[in-house]
Order: sequence, then C-alpha cells, then structure tokens
Amino acid sequence: MRRPVIGVMGAGVPSAGCLGAARQLGRTVAERGWILLTGGRPEGVMAAACAGAKEITGSLTLGILPGVSGEGPDVDIAVFTGMGEARNVVNVLTSDVVVACGVEGPGTISEIALALKADKPVILMAASDPARLLFESVRSRNRLLHAATPEEVVELIENELGVARGNWKV
Amino acid sequence: MRRPVIGVMGAGVPSAGCLGAARQLGRTVAERGWILLTGGRPEGVMAAACAGAKEITGSLTLGILPGVSGEGPDVDIAVFTGMGEARNVVNVLTSDVVVACGVEGPGTISEIALALKADKPVILMAASDPARLLFESVRSRNRLLHAATPEEVVELIENELGVARGNWKV
Amino acid sequence: MRRPVIGVMGAGVPSAGCLGAARQLGRTVAERGWILLTGGRPEGVMAAACAGAKEITGSLTLGILPGVSGEGPDVDIAVFTGMGEARNVVNVLTSDVVVACGVEGPGTISEIALALKADKPVILMAASDPARLLFESVRSRNRLLHAATPEEVVELIENELGVARGNWKV
Amino acid sequence: MRRPVIGVMGAGVPSAGCLGAARQLGRTVAERGWILLTGGRPEGVMAAACAGAKEITGSLTLGILPGVSGEGPDVDIAVFTGMGEARNVVNVLTSDVVVACGVEGPGTISEIALALKADKPVILMAASDPARLLFESVRSRNRLLHAATPEEVVELIENELGVARGNWKV
Repeated sequence: MRRPVIGVMGAGVPSAGCLGAARQLGRTVAERGWILLTGGRPEGVMAAACAGAKEITGSLTLGILPGVSGEGPDVDIAVFTGMGEARNVVNVLTSDVVVACGVEGPGTISEIALALKADKPVILMAASDPARLLFESVRSRNRLLHAATPEEVVELIENELGVARGNWKV
Repeated sequence: MRRPVIGVMGAGVPSAGCLGAARQLGRTVAERGWILLTGGRPEGVMAAACAGAKEITGSLTLGILPGVSGEGPDVDIAVFTGMGEARNVVNVLTSDVVVACGVEGPGTISEIALALKADKPVILMAASDPARLLFESVRSRNRLLHAATPEEVVELIENELGVARGNWKV
Repeated sequence: MRRPVIGVMGAGVPSAGCLGAARQLGRTVAERGWILLTGGRPEGVMAAACAGAKEITGSLTLGILPGVSGEGPDVDIAVFTGMGEARNVVNVLTSDVVVACGVEGPGTISEIALALKADKPVILMAASDPARLLFESVRSRNRLLHAATPEEVVELIENELGVARGNWKV
Repeated sequence: MRRPVIGVMGAGVPSAGCLGAARQLGRTVAERGWILLTGGRPEGVMAAACAGAKEITGSLTLGILPGVSGEGPDVDIAVFTGMGEARNVVNVLTSDVVVACGVEGPGTISEIALALKADKPVILMAASDPARLLFESVRSRNRLLHAATPEEVVELIENELGVARGNWKV
C-alpha cells in the first residue's frame, strides 16, 4: 500500500510561531512514515517543514514547484510544473490530507479552498477566527478540522487515514 | 486598445440575492463595452452574469471552462481547459479586474486568493465580515476593494481601469 | 449557435512560405466569420495569422498566451494562462478544428499530437513527408487531413464544420 | 544531491517489443539508483517500466497522473494533477532525461516535442524513421539522442548526467 502523502501548506513569509510549528510538524509527519508534500520552495513554512522531516532517517519529502527550478535543499523529489500557482491544485490533489500551518497568505487560502472543493480532509492549525468562520461557511460534505498544535494535527491525520484507508499503520 | 476583461466570480449555487446582483452586474459590465469573463458553466453566478450581459447588443461573454465541454447558453466564446479547478488561475490572470459576487463557495474563495496573489485588483461585493477580514489580513501591495451593489462595483472598475490604462473610455 | 473557433498553429520562427500562408489563412478564416485562435505571441505564424484576420472587418482573434502578458498587437482577446507550454492543451481543446501551418517547431508538433489525442480534426498544411508519415502512424479514430494551400484548408474546415455542426453556415 | 529522475514515456497500447524493452529499461534505471518517472497509469509502457523498477530493492517510482486517481500498482508516489494531458508538461519538466520507449502514440509524440521545447535531453529508443527525421528537423540547441536497446539508453543517460551534474555517480 502506498505511503500516505501529507500536504503541509503555509506562507512563504510566515509568523515566527508558524515557522517553529512547521518544523515540528514536518518532523512528526516523517516519524510516522508519511511522505511530506510542500510547495517546495526554499522559504517559510515549506522550507521549515522539509527541514524538520529531514531530521528523520528514511523520511521522504516531495516538493511541487511553480517553476522549472528553485527547489529547497531539503526536497528529496522535486516535481516541476512550470504552471505558477496552478500547481496549488496539484498540491491538494496529491495529498491524502491537507494541513494549513497558519492561514497567513493568499497562496495558503487558495490551497485550503481548492482542497475543500476537491473534498479532501483539511486541517487548519492556528487559524484566525475569520479564517475558521469563512471556511466553515463554505464546507459542504467535506471534513474541515481544527488543531492548535502539531501533536493535535497528527492525531487528526491518524484518524483520517484510519477511516480512509482501513486502519493503515506504518 | 483591447477591450477590458472583467472577471465575475461566484458560486454555482448562490443565494438569491447574489443571483440577481450577478445578472445586473453582467448587464452593466456589457453596457460599458467591457468583455465579461466567467467560469462558463450553466449555473449560478456564472450563468446569471452571462445572461445579463447578453441582454445588451454587442456584448461579448468569455467562459473559461474546467472541462472540454459544458458551456452555458450565453457564453459567446468558450475556452476549454480540461484542467479542472486549475482553470481558476486562468480566470484571474485573464481578467483586468476580478469581482467576487458574494463569497459563498470554495471555488470563489480560491479565485479571490489567486487574484490577490497575482496582484490583480479585486472587488468583493456583498462579502461577509469573515471574508472581508480574512482577505484584508493577507493583502499586500494589491488593491482589495469592497462594494455593496453592482453600481458601486462598476464605479470601482472605472477607477481601476482609469488608473491602469490611461483613462480608457469605451 | 457559437461561432466556430479555428486554431492555427505554427512556428515562432517559420519559413517564409509559411508566414505568407499564415497571413492568408488568418484572413480567410476571418472572412468566413470564424474566430481565429492562436498562441497569441507577437511572432511567426501566430502574428501573421492574426494580422491577416484583422484585415477583415468584424474579425475576432483569440490568443492563448503561455505567460501573464506579451500578447501580439492583433490579438482581440488575450487569455493569459501563466502555464507555459501547458497552454498548448488549451489551444487544441478550445479549437473546433486545428490547423498546423507548417510543422517546423517542437511546439507545433506537440499541438498536433495533443489535438490527435483529444480527437480533434487536424489539418496539416505544407507538412514534410516525415511529419505526414509520423502523424498518420498514430492516428486512430480521429480525422487527420492534408492540404497544400490556405484555400484547401478552408474547404476542409467547411467540410468538418458541416459534419460536426449540422451544416453550420455563417 | 538529489537522485536523478529519468522519465520513461511510451504508448498505453504499445507493440510487444516496446513492452519488453520498457520493463527492462525500468529495471535498469532502478538498478542505477535513479528515480523512474512515468505517466503512472496501469497500462502499456508506463506499467511495464514501473513493474521492472519494482523488481529492484530500494527502487522509487513516481507517477504523474492525468486524473485524480487511477495510478498503477507499481507506482510508489502518485502525483495527481487533474489536468489531463497538460500533465505531460510536468512529466518532461520533472525529468532530468526523457526517454521515449517507442514513438507509437500521440501522447508520446507530445512529450518528446515538449521535452525538446524545454531543452531537456531526449533519447529516442526504437523510433521509426519518420519519427527520427521529424524530431531531428526541429531540434535546435537541445540534445536529441538515439538508441536501439535499454542498455544503450542507460549509457546515454550516464553520459548526460555526467555532463549535467558533475559526474554524478550512484
């Protein structure tokens, strides 16, 4: 059975709190044996999550890039789309679960919205009240979950993968 | 000089208020001589705006479709992308100004976010408080404007086109 | 009924013969009342076909661009994809008939191949023997036609539109 | 340094000769420690190459899918684009070297052409004379190479990676 892919989305220029959480989240995702997917660029949440994952032996990081080069140093597999922000669609369609590590930029908002549209499980970590309220207002049959910490995120992911994949365990 | 393209985004299953406003907005955009761009499908805000535009002689409606068929009856030119929601990127990049006619679904949210990311002028019509607050929080140097009615939207568009295109007049 | 869209594909740096034929083809397509679709950039076959079309009053030229700007002067409606060569897919899916005005560059080859894959009618004008042989070898149920001149191309288009659209006449 | 990605392209319904060669090619690519990239669907050259690679312990297969599901059983990492044939662009941009295992369908032709357009090294294996002649006629500064067998392909890849990556060795 294929290893689950966890997409971690977040701003290129995030708040300090998000940056630390992203690194911890990347590490925890890697510890579970899941593949970490990010937007692949060497900045912000993307870079921090990948750096966290690469602290773990055997981790695998997948970066989906907007351009034809420019991947961060901790990206194991760089998928180059050359499609700019249209690659955000690939990010969410390729992820089994989408995690927003903060909702601090338009790119992240687009990815949350595209994930809801695609009926992917979405976990918002440390989202502001307006973000929570807006996304709650447009959810339909999809699962929109909320977490305060990386530990809570991972618990929610485990639940999601259990439901979706017959109690998949690493 | 090319005719300006005004992108009108909105839900496939909108509230009744949005539907009426979309039709009026489409008609007013067409009266100004601007090209109306929508997502092209025969439902919701897309269909209502196109229907409004086609009440005006000489109007031109451009639909950017997610699939390879399925355009609405009031779409003059159907651009088929076959790319699903990735076509939302084409919608915003092709529009000189992006108008959200309500913020009532994830597709619309993604388009607003992608437009802000692409530094397009964005006008939110009849947006909820959470929508206004969230998008205000992620705007950077781009222009994010608010309107309550189609008339206000058109005034804002005229301002935007004047600034951007050397007082372009139809 | 929507106006047919005729996609004219060809090299950015074509041979002199192709350039003249592209201009004549653009003009003839416009005379029939069909919309001319090209890749939209200000060079080669794209530019020549658009220039030919704009000699005709009431003509409409649609350019599907790889970037977010850079359309040629004779493009009436510029669709900006920001997706690089992935826009070639949009070109062929949006065209009712695809015409290759020479087969002189890799972009054109990709468009012919994508059109055959999408089961679009494809007309090769002034193709080399290897081009004819290769594309004949991979055609399946789709229609692959050959022409030597713009006049022959237009006759073939008329046949195709007649079959596909219930004897559509402008 | 990232593991090189070798894209193996070919028909969904190939000739018997291509099928055997694809399997051998996939195995040989995996033996070298390179990542195998294919179109990811469970048929033809894609499936055979992946099956060959998975005979090797530690192999890694990356499938770039046109849809949102439907990957073959030997795909380790499935990237879902939901973009139809536009994913062919992602295939070639993500590959360090593109190998056509036969030129037997329009999809493969589009990928070769897109790879040449993107200036990727391209290796044609067992190509027909028209295919060789046509692609030779549109090459510019890019490298277009020819091989008869999987062994020859791998030698050519080693040369390409040596040049491009400072004598990278697995």
